Amino acid sequence: MKVRVSIDVMLKDGILDPQGKTVEQSLPSLGYDGVEGVRIGKHIEMVVEGDSIESVRAEVEEMTQRFLSNPVIEDAVVTIEGDLGE
Amino acid sequence: MKVRVSIDVMLKDGILDPQGKTVEQSLPSLGYDGVEGVRIGKHIEMVVEGDSIESVRAEVEEMTQRFLSNPVIEDAVVTIEGDLGE
Repeated sequence: MKVRVSIDVMLKDGILDPQGKTVEQSLPSLGYDGVEGVRIGKHIEMVVEGDSIESVRAEVEEMTQRFLSNPVIEDAVVTIEGDLGE
Repeated sequence: MKVRVSIDVMLKDGILDPQGKTVEQSLPSLGYDGVEGVRIGKHIEMVVEGDSIESVRAEVEEMTQRFLSNPVIEDAVVTIEGDLGE
């Protein structure tokens, strides 16, 4: 089966996010008030072939921890978006 | 009210994603087979103050189209994650 998976990789809470801070500080002068806590990370999408949803999730969690994020400073959330059924 | 919002910004289908392609081509040599269609974009989180969920969504959709994405080459999905109730 082929499974569509997404991974959100964000800097951990408490770690300075200069990109997010820059956007947050720019928005008022662009006419958008009342925006706070802007954080910018990565959104990764992929299609993974495996025997089951569980095995796909385990494989993606492992590759995320090993290669797609830096677990020292980043948190990653793996989401199973759906089974393509092939 | 304060509303938690997330925005996923991805290159449109058909536009070459060199970062995703590089990850996809690296995974087999790292021991992960059966992964295809890797696309890498941005995941943005923020807290927005507004009168209603609808007004917050409209404001975020507008700032996304104007400043947080390039609508010529990128698609953006705005998701209301929840009402912080403040």
